[in-house]
Amino acid sequence: MSADVKPSPYHAETNRLRSFHSARERFIRATDTPREHLERCIDAIEALEPMVRAFVSTHFAHARDAADAATNRYRQAKPLSVSDGMPIGVMDLFDIQDMPTQLNSPIFSGWKSGQDAACVYAMRTHGAAIVGKTSTTEFGLSAPPGTRKPYGYARSPGGASSESAAAVGARIVPTALGAHAMGSIVQPAGYCANYAFKPSFGTINRGGGHFPCPSATHIGVHSGTLRDAWELCWFLSHTAGPDAGHTAIAGSSQLAEARMPHRLVRMFTPGWEMTPQSARESFEELLDRLAQAGVEIVEPDSNPRTIALEANFFTARRMITDIAAYAMRWPMWTYEDRNENALSVHIKGYLNRGRAMRVDDYHRALARRSAFRARHLATAGFADGFISLSSPGPAPEGPESAGVPFAQTPDSALGAPVAGLPLLAIDGLPQGVQLMGFTGSDDRTAAHARWICEHLLKPAP
Amino acid sequence: MSADVKPSPYHAETNRLRSFHSARERFIRATDTPREHLERCIDAIEALEPMVRAFVSTHFAHARDAADAATNRYRQAKPLSVSDGMPIGVMDLFDIQDMPTQLNSPIFSGWKSGQDAACVYAMRTHGAAIVGKTSTTEFGLSAPPGTRKPYGYARSPGGASSESAAAVGARIVPTALGAHAMGSIVQPAGYCANYAFKPSFGTINRGGGHFPCPSATHIGVHSGTLRDAWELCWFLSHTAGPDAGHTAIAGSSQLAEARMPHRLVRMFTPGWEMTPQSARESFEELLDRLAQAGVEIVEPDSNPRTIALEANFFTARRMITDIAAYAMRWPMWTYEDRNENALSVHIKGYLNRGRAMRVDDYHRALARRSAFRARHLATAGFADGFISLSSPGPAPEGPESAGVPFAQTPDSALGAPVAGLPLLAIDGLPQGVQLMGFTGSDDRTAAHARWICEHLLKPAP
Repeated sequence: MSADVKPSPYHAETNRLRSFHSARERFIRATDTPREHLERCIDAIEALEPMVRAFVSTHFAHARDAADAATNRYRQAKPLSVSDGMPIGVMDLFDIQDMPTQLNSPIFSGWKSGQDAACVYAMRTHGAAIVGKTSTTEFGLSAPPGTRKPYGYARSPGGASSESAAAVGARIVPTALGAHAMGSIVQPAGYCANYAFKPSFGTINRGGGHFPCPSATHIGVHSGTLRDAWELCWFLSHTAGPDAGHTAIAGSSQLAEARMPHRLVRMFTPGWEMTPQSARESFEELLDRLAQAGVEIVEPDSNPRTIALEANFFTARRMITDIAAYAMRWPMWTYEDRNENALSVHIKGYLNRGRAMRVDDYHRALARRSAFRARHLATAGFADGFISLSSPGPAPEGPESAGVPFAQTPDSALGAPVAGLPLLAIDGLPQGVQLMGFTGSDDRTAAHARWICEHLLKPAP
Repeated sequence: MSADVKPSPYHAETNRLRSFHSARERFIRATDTPREHLERCIDAIEALEPMVRAFVSTHFAHARDAADAATNRYRQAKPLSVSDGMPIGVMDLFDIQDMPTQLNSPIFSGWKSGQDAACVYAMRTHGAAIVGKTSTTEFGLSAPPGTRKPYGYARSPGGASSESAAAVGARIVPTALGAHAMGSIVQPAGYCANYAFKPSFGTINRGGGHFPCPSATHIGVHSGTLRDAWELCWFLSHTAGPDAGHTAIAGSSQLAEARMPHRLVRMFTPGWEMTPQSARESFEELLDRLAQAGVEIVEPDSNPRTIALEANFFTARRMITDIAAYAMRWPMWTYEDRNENALSVHIKGYLNRGRAMRVDDYHRALARRSAFRARHLATAGFADGFISLSSPGPAPEGPESAGVPFAQTPDSALGAPVAGLPLLAIDGLPQGVQLMGFTGSDDRTAAHARWICEHLLKPAP
């Protein structure tokens, strides 16, 4: 399997990742089995892991047992779920019963919770073959773990769920579970050329996950196709259930039919200033192609509805990092007491910031976020979503650079659904595009994202 | 200390529990020290624990170290906080670094998380002397742990935080931390004759607590005085912080001045039908005394604003148990996989109910709860709160009977603040009264509760 994975150059139109829904059709037709499919994934791990370094732990024996059981069920035409037999990597912020939860922190080195997180439990009991845990940044926040991206091994795979992205982008597994507090799903997906879907806040049960920013963390999926990302998100939301007091993803278990968006607002963030000319030009060309097809592209400063909103896109980072700095005081203070030297400078910066905050500062940040959310929802009747590059240019050099997720800070603050789409290539490297919709309208966002992909990506030769 | 604890009879006017704020004044005046105060609590544990059985584990050495450090700080007139030197019991649903977290389930027998819950961390780092863990019902839900109440050792102390209540009501400790999903703070407080305050939902950080109904669980305090309950709740809310995305308790760190309520609605629930005549008459007499003082008592069926609300008070139990049954599927299903026989019939009943539910059933229960909340808040301009007995009569016979918390299901569903006040005696046994206010107006509820207590309880002879 390693022969078809080339570090470069990248072409958006011809790049093909693992598609689990195609594999499932083969399982049903009995031209392939979950076990054989899993073995090809394991071969890919063994061939590519020395370069990509996506996994922090693996448990092939259990994955093989799960794949064998799934193989039997497909033979009897009785698969358990859309994820029956699905090889999957799980970001190491989630508990898995038989693997350590290490959060890429020496404080958790070798620590085992002994339990399955809600999502993991849902997948395991519905037939998924959990291949291993993908590494993460420290507590999902900082300090890139030294993994490398599939296109240009010297480059960073991006922020926290980077290694889930890398495992999919390198064609090791068809899907991987990630979590996102400030941008850690769609930003690395753009760097690694995979699809990603981060549904609305609260739609997927976070029980058994270790997330330092609980009012901001979303669960999402990296995958080789938009359809697989949607199907797994919907399955998790309806099987593990939503977070307490929240509602599940609306719409059908199947990815909705492609729907042309009527009107999209172009989203700027501080990232645009940093975007190289080649990426800007490619994005403008992409917008032109959408406009030619009949999508109205709205410049944010042309409309009173979007001017204030665009200002919030610029200030969202301050808002969410204030909220995170206060909210992570516990448990981070207890970690600091256990081993101060084990925390990175980045985490210590958050702790100092949190130490200087009073609860009124936190209330003010929450109030600003509420106002931002109301302003965003007020545009739902006007536009179908917000389109932007998912990063200011392709992945930076150096695996130690996670990059700042400028494009995702708005959806992090809003709790809005966002689809990450590998639509562009810049200088032979992947460049992601993202579509942000409105909280609670995940199915519409997915339908628009599907149309954009089908329109812009020519069929494979 | 054991000499002054008599199982019966109980007199509301003369009953005196430990008052930490009085002790603190003595510490400041140097007529007492935190260490001497703690030793009196430890003496009480040793004398009473064979009868009351409130504690599941204790750690006196650490509590003594904390009390000695507090003693030094008071000598230097530098106490760390309102809880510096406070002996406290912590319900065994919260993690404490150096004690097991056992949730009264064999599945967690001897299990240690190795961490302090957010509240515990806040208290420990601000000088509290954590005496031990008070037992709880299984996962805080069912199966009374065999503790006994201080007035009539053969009687039940009530629901989940019963043993925190028993520890305070038996004059063992001045304060104890509890948690409430369906009524487990104010109901047992009424049985055990202590004060309790359960602030608005989300106002106190629940990190490091193990709660099976995360959209319903509130943290609250049992104490010997209303002032101590308020001060500790406020301290926890502003030091451990609120839950992610929620706001802290409004008002001042000091208990507000007593304020006469203008208008109170009498709250019926299915519990009224079960209430013995003697308790009904005592409650009617209490309402008469309030009315004579100028408080307008509103019968719910006399007012269009309250008729629909009162209907919800009757249906709230179904609403919250539906929500709980769905929300506890994870982690309860994983516990069931680990050891099915270790779960009680009560928990299995919830699991079967959750198994039969789809996410749409959960959505419907949440929607009913939202409508109930809106209906309740719409009465905030009309009345100051809702008054009722905190249980249908005094504690039932038999430590195996936790009683159904009818009076608390409304505030559990609403997330509203409620004060538990030990105002009545029925046949020589304590009978609690409760005042429910409006979400976010904790300080007003406390001020009204204070006025009611000061008006109805004559000064001690």
